[in-house]
Amino acid sequence: MHNYDEYKGIAEHHLLDYLPQVDAKARTIYDSMKYSVMSGGKRLRPVLLLAACEYAGGETAEALPYACAIEYIHTYSLIHDDLPAMDNDDLRRGNPTNHKIYGEAVAILAGDGLLNTAFETLFRNLTYYFDDPKKLKRHISAALIIAKAAGVNGMIAGQLADVENECRECSIELVDFIDENKTGALLKAPILAGLILAGADEPTILHFASYAECIGKAFQVSDDILDVVGTEKELGKTIGKDSAQGKANYALVNGIEAAEKELHRLTVLAKEALEEACGDTSFFEELADQLEKRRS
Amino acid sequence: MHNYDEYKGIAEHHLLDYLPQVDAKARTIYDSMKYSVMSGGKRLRPVLLLAACEYAGGETAEALPYACAIEYIHTYSLIHDDLPAMDNDDLRRGNPTNHKIYGEAVAILAGDGLLNTAFETLFRNLTYYFDDPKKLKRHISAALIIAKAAGVNGMIAGQLADVENECRECSIELVDFIDENKTGALLKAPILAGLILAGADEPTILHFASYAECIGKAFQVSDDILDVVGTEKELGKTIGKDSAQGKANYALVNGIEAAEKELHRLTVLAKEALEEACGDTSFFEELADQLEKRRS
Repeated sequence: MHNYDEYKGIAEHHLLDYLPQVDAKARTIYDSMKYSVMSGGKRLRPVLLLAACEYAGGETAEALPYACAIEYIHTYSLIHDDLPAMDNDDLRRGNPTNHKIYGEAVAILAGDGLLNTAFETLFRNLTYYFDDPKKLKRHISAALIIAKAAGVNGMIAGQLADVENECRECSIELVDFIDENKTGALLKAPILAGLILAGADEPTILHFASYAECIGKAFQVSDDILDVVGTEKELGKTIGKDSAQGKANYALVNGIEAAEKELHRLTVLAKEALEEACGDTSFFEELADQLEKRRS
Repeated sequence: MHNYDEYKGIAEHHLLDYLPQVDAKARTIYDSMKYSVMSGGKRLRPVLLLAACEYAGGETAEALPYACAIEYIHTYSLIHDDLPAMDNDDLRRGNPTNHKIYGEAVAILAGDGLLNTAFETLFRNLTYYFDDPKKLKRHISAALIIAKAAGVNGMIAGQLADVENECRECSIELVDFIDENKTGALLKAPILAGLILAGADEPTILHFASYAECIGKAFQVSDDILDVVGTEKELGKTIGKDSAQGKANYALVNGIEAAEKELHRLTVLAKEALEEACGDTSFFEELADQLEKRRS
């Protein structure tokens, strides 16, 4: 197993590999997609995918298209989320958002282009396994998991509920629904997809599903805390937006102290979920601790 | 072989089959996707897919997920194209556009949701062919053709070039590029995907690829003519927009008479492309004639 920065390095080294070259007449679509894909970030989703695949004995080369596809999907969701009609954000990872550079029309198309490219990459990847039925099935299952998590019973459902409930009192149940879908779905999917690509057994997948659900919730709670107490410089994005827009935010609904307690509880639960998993799970336990302590 | 209206009826009967039910907390995403999917239209892309599959001896049941997926992709492209930041259209198929009913944020998500649902449907469909390697390969190839046609070297490239060249003088070369990609790619893909699903041979696929390219161009030229000489009532959408927005339009660049001549030339070429194709190609020849004469 590598460490976080090594997996991140591998993912970043290959992030442009699956962005197709385009005709000069549509060059801007490539430039705008590349701008957002290469504008930094933690690369948490590809790291989780590569680590899960290696943990279960899979090959990194097989996992790369999935690692990149899930980062494209995450990036498209940020581009659309930042649009004036959505969160209306000028700043992302310390840089101007896509529509501030390329305009709204191109930003909408860049998001569409990244989502399409993610799935085009995965369909093309399947054609390389025509002669290996066992691996082909694993790859199809992994791709389906990512597509479901990104869809209208996953991330898009969370986005919808988030957008629709601005400026309203949010119940804890609704905050949970938004967190589970908007953030949790696309953190769980890379872990499960990585395991499935490597042919992990059912008990392993179940242990890691519990782990993923806990760190997904923890990640959103810490996001909510940072939106209240973080600094713009550390985060590279506009803060205090949840409060200004009346967004669902665990720390705003329950207070900072309760949020920090919940974050710790979820981190402990995540680590406990791996106690019965075979092999060396230390990467994932350390990651849960790092996510609890993160300041950006 | 069925006639156009029969294929259209089959497609419409199944169009909601692959739209997933969603949690009540995100119900609006389902409603908004359904609103646009069910708001009428010619259903040309699913008809082409079902007809091509049946022509080559394939089973309609196998082609249905693809027919619906390509209509979802077409529908998402219309929703995003109609947004204020893009074409800013209030009317589509005689009804208010998606964002006029649901607002811009939901319309963006409904488009994203339909694109994701299209590919989620195709990945899920692949899992039903795990025990039939021959068919599984055909299905993967068909899905890849659709993903490529919808992507940044297909429809999205055309949209980008169209958006970027508003209010400029368009060269004939650029108009061709936009037409081939924005419209042509998603008319060619269903024909090829239908044939591939049915296991058609290479010469058949090549004849139909030529046919598809000709009717794709013809379709866009007739669209351009209708934007100049059609009526809003017949078309169910705002007309004269190309002129008002300085959009690439064959009839505006070359004149109505030259456009009608080109439309006829392309229709003849399309039919000639099928002369050496085996079996009964009359459905596709009649369709080329119908598309030449269409008034909406």
